[in-house]
Amino acid sequence: MIADTPPMGWNSWDCYGAAVTEEQVLQNAEYMAKYLKQYGWEYIVVDIQWSAPDADSHEYHAFSELRMDGFGRLIPAENRFPSAAGGRGFRPLADKIHEMGLKFGIHIMRGMPRMAAHQHLPIKDSDATCDQAANPHSICLWNPDMYGLKCDTPQARAYYDSIFRLYAEWGVDFVKCDDIAREYPHCEKEIEVISAACRKCGRDMVLSLSPGPAPLDRAEHLKTWANMWRITDDFWDKWELLKGMFERAEKWCIHAGPGHWPDADMLPVGALRQCYDPDNRTQFTQAEQRTMMTLWCMMRSPLMIGGEMTKNDDFTLKLLTNGEVLAIEKESWSAHPLFTTEKESAWIAPRRDGTGYYLALFNLSDEERTVTVSAKQQGLADSSEATELWTGRKTAETESYSATLAAHDAAVFRCFS
Amino acid sequence: MIADTPPMGWNSWDCYGAAVTEEQVLQNAEYMAKYLKQYGWEYIVVDIQWSAPDADSHEYHAFSELRMDGFGRLIPAENRFPSAAGGRGFRPLADKIHEMGLKFGIHIMRGMPRMAAHQHLPIKDSDATCDQAANPHSICLWNPDMYGLKCDTPQARAYYDSIFRLYAEWGVDFVKCDDIAREYPHCEKEIEVISAACRKCGRDMVLSLSPGPAPLDRAEHLKTWANMWRITDDFWDKWELLKGMFERAEKWCIHAGPGHWPDADMLPVGALRQCYDPDNRTQFTQAEQRTMMTLWCMMRSPLMIGGEMTKNDDFTLKLLTNGEVLAIEKESWSAHPLFTTEKESAWIAPRRDGTGYYLALFNLSDEERTVTVSAKQQGLADSSEATELWTGRKTAETESYSATLAAHDAAVFRCFS
Amino acid sequence: MIADTPPMGWNSWDCYGAAVTEEQVLQNAEYMAKYLKQYGWEYIVVDIQWSAPDADSHEYHAFSELRMDGFGRLIPAENRFPSAAGGRGFRPLADKIHEMGLKFGIHIMRGMPRMAAHQHLPIKDSDATCDQAANPHSICLWNPDMYGLKCDTPQARAYYDSIFRLYAEWGVDFVKCDDIAREYPHCEKEIEVISAACRKCGRDMVLSLSPGPAPLDRAEHLKTWANMWRITDDFWDKWELLKGMFERAEKWCIHAGPGHWPDADMLPVGALRQCYDPDNRTQFTQAEQRTMMTLWCMMRSPLMIGGEMTKNDDFTLKLLTNGEVLAIEKESWSAHPLFTTEKESAWIAPRRDGTGYYLALFNLSDEERTVTVSAKQQGLADSSEATELWTGRKTAETESYSATLAAHDAAVFRCFS
Amino acid sequence: MIADTPPMGWNSWDCYGAAVTEEQVLQNAEYMAKYLKQYGWEYIVVDIQWSAPDADSHEYHAFSELRMDGFGRLIPAENRFPSAAGGRGFRPLADKIHEMGLKFGIHIMRGMPRMAAHQHLPIKDSDATCDQAANPHSICLWNPDMYGLKCDTPQARAYYDSIFRLYAEWGVDFVKCDDIAREYPHCEKEIEVISAACRKCGRDMVLSLSPGPAPLDRAEHLKTWANMWRITDDFWDKWELLKGMFERAEKWCIHAGPGHWPDADMLPVGALRQCYDPDNRTQFTQAEQRTMMTLWCMMRSPLMIGGEMTKNDDFTLKLLTNGEVLAIEKESWSAHPLFTTEKESAWIAPRRDGTGYYLALFNLSDEERTVTVSAKQQGLADSSEATELWTGRKTAETESYSATLAAHDAAVFRCFS
Repeated sequence: MIADTPPMGWNSWDCYGAAVTEEQVLQNAEYMAKYLKQYGWEYIVVDIQWSAPDADSHEYHAFSELRMDGFGRLIPAENRFPSAAGGRGFRPLADKIHEMGLKFGIHIMRGMPRMAAHQHLPIKDSDATCDQAANPHSICLWNPDMYGLKCDTPQARAYYDSIFRLYAEWGVDFVKCDDIAREYPHCEKEIEVISAACRKCGRDMVLSLSPGPAPLDRAEHLKTWANMWRITDDFWDKWELLKGMFERAEKWCIHAGPGHWPDADMLPVGALRQCYDPDNRTQFTQAEQRTMMTLWCMMRSPLMIGGEMTKNDDFTLKLLTNGEVLAIEKESWSAHPLFTTEKESAWIAPRRDGTGYYLALFNLSDEERTVTVSAKQQGLADSSEATELWTGRKTAETESYSATLAAHDAAVFRCFS
Repeated sequence: MIADTPPMGWNSWDCYGAAVTEEQVLQNAEYMAKYLKQYGWEYIVVDIQWSAPDADSHEYHAFSELRMDGFGRLIPAENRFPSAAGGRGFRPLADKIHEMGLKFGIHIMRGMPRMAAHQHLPIKDSDATCDQAANPHSICLWNPDMYGLKCDTPQARAYYDSIFRLYAEWGVDFVKCDDIAREYPHCEKEIEVISAACRKCGRDMVLSLSPGPAPLDRAEHLKTWANMWRITDDFWDKWELLKGMFERAEKWCIHAGPGHWPDADMLPVGALRQCYDPDNRTQFTQAEQRTMMTLWCMMRSPLMIGGEMTKNDDFTLKLLTNGEVLAIEKESWSAHPLFTTEKESAWIAPRRDGTGYYLALFNLSDEERTVTVSAKQQGLADSSEATELWTGRKTAETESYSATLAAHDAAVFRCFS
Repeated sequence: MIADTPPMGWNSWDCYGAAVTEEQVLQNAEYMAKYLKQYGWEYIVVDIQWSAPDADSHEYHAFSELRMDGFGRLIPAENRFPSAAGGRGFRPLADKIHEMGLKFGIHIMRGMPRMAAHQHLPIKDSDATCDQAANPHSICLWNPDMYGLKCDTPQARAYYDSIFRLYAEWGVDFVKCDDIAREYPHCEKEIEVISAACRKCGRDMVLSLSPGPAPLDRAEHLKTWANMWRITDDFWDKWELLKGMFERAEKWCIHAGPGHWPDADMLPVGALRQCYDPDNRTQFTQAEQRTMMTLWCMMRSPLMIGGEMTKNDDFTLKLLTNGEVLAIEKESWSAHPLFTTEKESAWIAPRRDGTGYYLALFNLSDEERTVTVSAKQQGLADSSEATELWTGRKTAETESYSATLAAHDAAVFRCFS
Repeated sequence: MIADTPPMGWNSWDCYGAAVTEEQVLQNAEYMAKYLKQYGWEYIVVDIQWSAPDADSHEYHAFSELRMDGFGRLIPAENRFPSAAGGRGFRPLADKIHEMGLKFGIHIMRGMPRMAAHQHLPIKDSDATCDQAANPHSICLWNPDMYGLKCDTPQARAYYDSIFRLYAEWGVDFVKCDDIAREYPHCEKEIEVISAACRKCGRDMVLSLSPGPAPLDRAEHLKTWANMWRITDDFWDKWELLKGMFERAEKWCIHAGPGHWPDADMLPVGALRQCYDPDNRTQFTQAEQRTMMTLWCMMRSPLMIGGEMTKNDDFTLKLLTNGEVLAIEKESWSAHPLFTTEKESAWIAPRRDGTGYYLALFNLSDEERTVTVSAKQQGLADSSEATELWTGRKTAETESYSATLAAHDAAVFRCFS
């Protein structure tokens, strides 16, 4: 089953924007294989604009001369991905990553390159031409490259089939499709056609939809057609965004389950924005990073590391390799908040195996604060002992759970029944 | 702790509207004591308009001469509640109900009788007069009797304190306060003042807020100040309303917990609308009634019987006395839907004690339908055996759960770990 | 024909709020008869709350004991209107004002006194009682006294008929009905019933509707049922409100005509707010007052003086007695703005008799400014000479009109063809 | 002064859609010169898609290969406009039309051809390239050809300057710019840049903005930057659309004046939709056509004939050559409706020269109806006699004006003072 637990991996956007290179991808893959793989991390995802020779930052260049094959399918820019030379596409890079025991993912925009339509290129394995599939009125509001497709036509299906077959040939395991998750209702059909192309392409691929916020009232559609979808706009290392995620997490938590995961976006940890400044690091405090990891795990969000991993410091590496915390993603179910106020929040997540539950306490205030939950008042199951998973501190006190937390910090207890 | 599990009882509205009499209340109390008490049912609630001598149906009479004492506090109309004669109020009736081992509840409208303000009556145990507490612009949109109070004044607090002290003297255990739950934001302060008066009146009382829909984004305020609150407008015996409750239940389920329960409203079962026609019965099919009971229990809604209980038929009595189903209200936590489509829905609720979980299957379509859930695909905990609680059928098949259900019917499994 | 030109008069609100007395009314009537009558001023209007003995400012007292007769009809409070003693109502006051050659008006709230309904009083010349006509849910948002009526009932018509017959007996010539002009759609029927009662009461009365803004898209309904109606919320002596009136005037100007006049509200000139401070004067500059008078005349708004007239200074009296400017109200038609920008505006109003037109220039900026209009560019009719009506300055230059105006000042030309 | 009275002419859209040919344009010009010129008709306008070789109906073809010069400026498709061969553009056609004593107009879309940007073409008389001026996110919702420009850049100004210089060289007198009038606020700057390019191009051109509805609250911006602008979406020969125009006309009438005219769109009279069916004629009844002409003239809308004129029948020709009715466009000012109800409407328009006024009566109902206006009740100027302009009937009765009108018919009186 695809994505039976929330996918975990690395994505190039937070550190390299649109400009990542093959070399950078490989160095992160090697790091992951060495330090993170044993904790469940496995996907290496090349984000947006890999076909643009002139990409150099988080910005997009209008009217860039994107690389594409004779069928209007984007291919990697060879100046950035040398192994793609000779029409081999991402296959050589994917092979290397697979050899490390990892999985390989790419970003796509919905639609086709505008030039493919203007040049009336043929669609692979089809009698149709690209201009017949393209919708000249369906454009992305923030990226200038593509036309969306007329998804009620066989030509559109033919085009999407043709690109997913190419990705299958390349060995792609994960596709992050962009300009689509918040574009209901007009992209609803496009989601279905892309998802159908993905499922029949001959290779298992996780289908991830961006950007958010996806609409809550379309949750069942998303659960049906995608493996993960963004629940907010882009998430970065600002406390206001992290605090705001509690409200989204509350609304979406009931929709997490095998094969379909609400996605709180990448983890902006460690070395970020490398295309602007190689010394740039996350603005999150350590406390805030614990809060982020705790919330993402409790709500069972996918986990995608955003930083250049080879520059991880000790704290970052430990943050990402706390096996007890990461286990929440795989062992819990039915999580929900007990309460969320301006100053604090508490979440509960029973273990599926019946051996107790997880209880997370969050200090959302800007000062140190003791957060307490009474087991009886909250109707928690009886527990005999508990361990706080960030500190390892054990406690026999199980009538109430309490933690004195720095501003924006979190604690999470494994409570044994 | 007040309302540590969802309150269960009977309310006079669905069968008698605004016109219930003491005799009718007592006959229902006696029935409950005899047939239902052992299953957890305990509250007997007199609904709206008990101070109106001329109430005769579900309608309200404008400019009715409501009975009140010299302090502007409504008292029972003696022609309908004879034991209230001599200024004894509801005390004699409450005493009788307590003697049966049950609890007694009343309905109130927020505010005070309009005439109390126009007549400038004194407020009990206060130097103020009623006109000083009343807000002449704060009126109910559907009932003509009351003025809301100016809740930022000490006079308003004095008035609310005075009525809750009276209810404590009467022996009231449950107060359903009306015209308030959906009146955010302008009634937010009034909720707080009423709740404070309730908590300091000297007697434990459940505080229930009506009508719905209460606003989801004020969930934490409701959890803080009330024990239960309506999540929809009035619920009656129509399939469309029952089907619509699935959406509300999905949004509110994470907010259920000890002391604070989202309320899906009364159960319109058995003999309804008796003030119009003594032969009137619920329009729900038996299947629909099972679906209603199953959903209410899974989401842990309070349960308030709406029918004249002495006219219960066998089916109705069995519906209300299935101890295994009712146990879900007390033994589960963290319930949530697995999915809800136009045609079917499934809900899951782990048991707090770790001994498995409940799984409910609903056929929302208008035809017979087999609803199936794969344990693995949905990430359910491993289970060794299961019992369907409406039929008692046991099954050793636990890789998937399946039920062939009539239109609008439900099944609910107790799955043992 | 009633109100064949825009009504002109005085209203007690701006100077006395809810608290005006008979003596104050008479002193203003005497002033008008002596100084203003010959310029067309004729109505003396007693504004809100004349039945409240305790009115003392611009505020309303909740649960005040309003004076009413045995049929639930409000009558003047004798402590404020001594001539009303003995059940004579406003008749003696109206008689005195008529003797001066003026006309008499009163303010009413839509609906009936709340106590009339609660006391179940009979309706005059009807078998019905007040509670049958009153709508307990129809209340004013800002005044606590009244219930609106159930206007689809004969009882409501009977009540409104009964009060207008009383006003006819009193000799009322003008009724300003409040809480109604901006209350579309729910007060649409109430406007019709009030208007019908007014028209059949046996005496000609101007019917004026307040407060604004009345909805522009209901212009034809207003033109059909009322003689004037407010186009903004309360207008006071603040430049922002005056500047804002240009937009309203632009939208409403096409709807001015005999019998139906969009009303820009009272003129806050001279001595205002006397109930708080006898030395209080308008905050408008002389320039702003010229702009106000010019705009009101060009758009043909009714003119109701707001100040205590006996305290008029020379400027104020001259402002109100410029016969050439006031003539615009009677001699022009089809006025409209040529343009309105942040800094200036120009309006044109042809004379009905074909002898040229009026051209108003406004400096809306906060600095001195020369405003110019080219006759040719704006398509103005040929003109041989022109007179500026505030200064009396004549000009033979008629290819363009120009005025150097202080901040917020106006000029208005009579252009002769 | 450009457009000192409302422009009058012919436009190819209603009869030929996107597909008109040079031959068809010329035959209509010849007709106009012969039959209509003496009544004030003068503009011959080639509507949308004249650079598309494959245009064949009212539809647009996505990814069509539009003809353009080496500077990204669209030029006529030679297969449809043979005289444009050899790079002569519209110059030869304009010359012929000018020789007939008429004026020549063209349609443009805001922006530049998409291919001009994708091909990075140079901008004429500039160092910039087209891709620098184009905004890849600014597209038309209904036409697939163009990108809007980044109007805060000098490159965008350079491009617009370059196309208007070309139009000046061609001898263009009228430019209808499309995809812009209702696109406030995001096209506000683009309107200004286009208007500036038009005014400095060296030749007088009327600037007309489409499609509607332009926003009423931007009237002053439109009056400042354009000569005419559409006040509704496309107008066709359906009574509902004609009836709906009364509301728009009412709102916009005060904004008509020399150089700036609210535009009620083309007149769908005579032979329409010729690209589909050479026998197609207007669906309007003769009565409706009189109503349309009367309303357009009273509100002083520009008049653009939509039908293939060589197929005019007698009625159509007479409709378009009633000099007394057409004179309203030039001789009146300050028009406005007296009233507009579901069943009838009346409009008034004074003559600028003071010699009376025009009064139009409309029957908006679906049955014959006598519409009457009392001169006194409506405050009309005194009149000694009057002539109804469609019938020529004179009347000495001037106390009231009355006409018995067929369903949807109109009368218009010239009332002499």
